Amino acid sequence: MQIAKVCGTVVSTQKLPTMTGVKLLLVQFVDREGELLPRYEVASDQVGAGLDEWVLVSRRAIAPHPEGADVRPVDAMIVGIIDTVSVSNGLLYSKKDEYRYR
Amino acid sequence: MQIAKVCGTVVSTQKLPTMTGVKLLLVQFVDREGELLPRYEVASDQVGAGLDEWVLVSRRAIAPHPEGADVRPVDAMIVGIIDTVSVSNGLLYSKKDEYRYR
Amino acid sequence: MQIAKVCGTVVSTQKLPTMTGVKLLLVQFVDREGELLPRYEVASDQVGAGLDEWVLVSRRAIAPHPEGADVRPVDAMIVGIIDTVSVSNGLLYSKKDEYRYR
Amino acid sequence: MQIAKVCGTVVSTQKLPTMTGVKLLLVQFVDREGELLPRYEVASDQVGAGLDEWVLVSRRAIAPHPEGADVRPVDAMIVGIIDTVSVSNGLLYSKKDEYRYR
Amino acid sequence: MQIAKVCGTVVSTQKLPTMTGVKLLLVQFVDREGELLPRYEVASDQVGAGLDEWVLVSRRAIAPHPEGADVRPVDAMIVGIIDTVSVSNGLLYSKKDEYRYR
Repeated sequence: MQIAKVCGTVVSTQKLPTMTGVKLLLVQFVDREGELLPRYEVASDQVGAGLDEWVLVSRRAIAPHPEGADVRPVDAMIVGIIDTVSVSNGLLYSKKDEYRYR
Repeated sequence: MQIAKVCGTVVSTQKLPTMTGVKLLLVQFVDREGELLPRYEVASDQVGAGLDEWVLVSRRAIAPHPEGADVRPVDAMIVGIIDTVSVSNGLLYSKKDEYRYR
Repeated sequence: MQIAKVCGTVVSTQKLPTMTGVKLLLVQFVDREGELLPRYEVASDQVGAGLDEWVLVSRRAIAPHPEGADVRPVDAMIVGIIDTVSVSNGLLYSKKDEYRYR
Repeated sequence: MQIAKVCGTVVSTQKLPTMTGVKLLLVQFVDREGELLPRYEVASDQVGAGLDEWVLVSRRAIAPHPEGADVRPVDAMIVGIIDTVSVSNGLLYSKKDEYRYR
Repeated sequence: MQIAKVCGTVVSTQKLPTMTGVKLLLVQFVDREGELLPRYEVASDQVGAGLDEWVLVSRRAIAPHPEGADVRPVDAMIVGIIDTVSVSNGLLYSKKDEYRYR
């Protein structure tokens, strides 16, 4: 998974029926030092992430099934809100303190 | 998913039978500031996207099934037409106004 | 999918049994302006693509199945030969005229 | 798989139910000469890797199943702790000696 | 698939049970002109590839199955040993002559 920061929302009304009810957040990837990278993803959110929170983003393969089952065609999703990121020389991020240490 | 702008169409007549009836659009990726990137994809469209519209593109894994089921071997598809992209300091894009704010 | 130009062939005799009978072409990716990129793939071909033709290449996920079914472990395949690529200001490529317009 | 060095841990309490009990490590990729790259992944660990150890990281496709089965939505996992990496002109890494040779 | 050159071996004893018996080779990718790229993969080998041989590497999606079946969590595998790579202006590589032509 990648570490990302929630930075916006995306709204789409004309979409595939399987996309109905999916909350879409714009998340921007964070590098190893905690700085924002230019790379982003539009990820589905089922954990209730809010603006500026750090989240874990998992890329998901959309394997179409021959049975025609309706699986959501979402290739990135937020799997958790990050509490802390610890590296060898201390805390890189803590949600509680709401700021990065380095 | 990535945000992309529809910029063209691709036509192929000699193709795999499973590709029959797939509408193919050339979409160019958009960066975090709303500028066009050099990266593109040829994506299938089932939502009726038009030229210059901003769309959500999902990368799709084509898992071949041992049952030999005919799943479309398409690795990118348009899953929705974007209405708005909102970031912390306002609207980045609105389809209604048909122009980017920044 | 990506747009690519067929630029060579690859032959392998000592290979996995599931790779038997797979025709392998070396395809080089084409950018948004129709220029060749350094990136390439060795893709399987079932549509009969020839040298210098523009093709659509789909990346394929090889999901191993627990039933042990023999699916070909090919992660890129040619899904169609391109006739035309049209962008907002005209034709980018036409197979018929056998040359790029821009 | 990629070779990576364990460099930290990530804690998340508010997460998808399927992520419960997953130990998450921050691993930083290592290049062909054994130097750390800026690229990282947050990977699940089931082999008991420790800080500074070199591990093998496998990217995993999360194919959602129509049966709604609870598969962990983890797209990177540690599949083994590396003992040695040997290249043509000698050892690149040996866990026993706990240091890189070049 | 990508063209790569076998350049080393990786040994791991403490690993996932599903990784038992997997032979792991360090392969370095080769560019369109036959030069080595910095990018590498640790790939499983079932075709008996040897040091310095050119091989075809396929990236594999590890789709976890809800049935809990033990599929090997390997995301790159050698699917064949390359005999020849031919491009429009001649041979790029031939295993027999054991050297590159250009």
